[in-house]
Amino acid sequence: MSERSEERAGRGRFIAFEGGDGVGKSTQVRLLADYLRGKQHEVVVTHEPGDSRIGAQVRSVVLDGGELDARAEALLFAADRADHVASVISPALARGASVLTDRYVDSSIAYQGVGRALGVSSVAALSEFATEGLRPDLTVLLDLDPAQRRLRLEQLGQFDRIEREPDEIHDQIRRAFLELAGAAPERYLVLDASRAADELAVDIAAAVEELVASGRMSGE
Amino acid sequence: MSERSEERAGRGRFIAFEGGDGVGKSTQVRLLADYLRGKQHEVVVTHEPGDSRIGAQVRSVVLDGGELDARAEALLFAADRADHVASVISPALARGASVLTDRYVDSSIAYQGVGRALGVSSVAALSEFATEGLRPDLTVLLDLDPAQRRLRLEQLGQFDRIEREPDEIHDQIRRAFLELAGAAPERYLVLDASRAADELAVDIAAAVEELVASGRMSGE
Repeated sequence: MSERSEERAGRGRFIAFEGGDGVGKSTQVRLLADYLRGKQHEVVVTHEPGDSRIGAQVRSVVLDGGELDARAEALLFAADRADHVASVISPALARGASVLTDRYVDSSIAYQGVGRALGVSSVAALSEFATEGLRPDLTVLLDLDPAQRRLRLEQLGQFDRIEREPDEIHDQIRRAFLELAGAAPERYLVLDASRAADELAVDIAAAVEELVASGRMSGE
Repeated sequence: MSERSEERAGRGRFIAFEGGDGVGKSTQVRLLADYLRGKQHEVVVTHEPGDSRIGAQVRSVVLDGGELDARAEALLFAADRADHVASVISPALARGASVLTDRYVDSSIAYQGVGRALGVSSVAALSEFATEGLRPDLTVLLDLDPAQRRLRLEQLGQFDRIEREPDEIHDQIRRAFLELAGAAPERYLVLDASRAADELAVDIAAAVEELVASGRMSGE
């Protein structure tokens, strides 16, 4: 049993939300947090890149444009993740809080490993190092058909550097998320993100209730 | 042959200077640059953490103090290195310039892998990813006895966060540098850094002349 596993006795649940931009992750994070808080659970809501000093720098370097070597970008995201796990996620789980994160390891594998063609195994290895193998108990993948995605992003006016990539890249990224979910279905809830937000929230809450009732936690 | 190897046809020499703080690396980099420029070679002098945007951030986060998770620190250094290789080192080598860098992969292995106990192989793997296997043709290791090191640092008034670590850590770091050199003696020049700077410069210039005459370049 690894060090991270031992720390898990009595820890809270760790739930990641994944999927492309504009699929409604932040809305579902907020709705699930409200639901769990209504049941008197302590909930920590967070996201990657994080709010720490490194996370702010990652945002600044990666998202505000400018040319950055793909490997440097992947390593910056991993640095932010290591800091995020050490300073936010692990301490919250250790005191029994549930942690809901908007993006985690799968986003790096999909965007850097596949989208920027660095390779799934290389990018997964960086995250394994960064997180010491800490894996979500449940990952909610909000999957959106490419045509719907573009429509939604245009309505929101959200196009940063990554979002200006061609549609083909987004199809690859979407497939990468789906493949990760398909490889470990017991740890994923895949939902059609074109459904109404309140309906999705009901399904997500039910899956989390089932997770808590089962007492199951992800292995390493 | 890897992509990096193919790029090497006609490229300049890549020489790294390694060793603890206060051993005289920057002096020797300058003296060797002067020597090579006197022979009409184009020389690029650089250092890690680098002068790029990421390098400046690494300095700010890592060297100015504050608590940072060891894994996040190692990943930040690797991100800076990836950017440094892609934007400074590889382009210079490709146009035939020689590159002299004050610190490179060995510093990460010694300081993060050994000094911060992350493990030599894990930290080496991060650098392998960051550099795509680009290795110096020659590494000059300036080795200094611990008692001499401390005396010299006190004279210079240079004690940052890393330098305030206990002597025992510095002994481990010194041994890590020596072990890396011992494992590939054909790619290292190990010198006693307590000798006079001008004498060391003569030995370094002789080793570089031999490297150029032999036409040898490091394998991957």
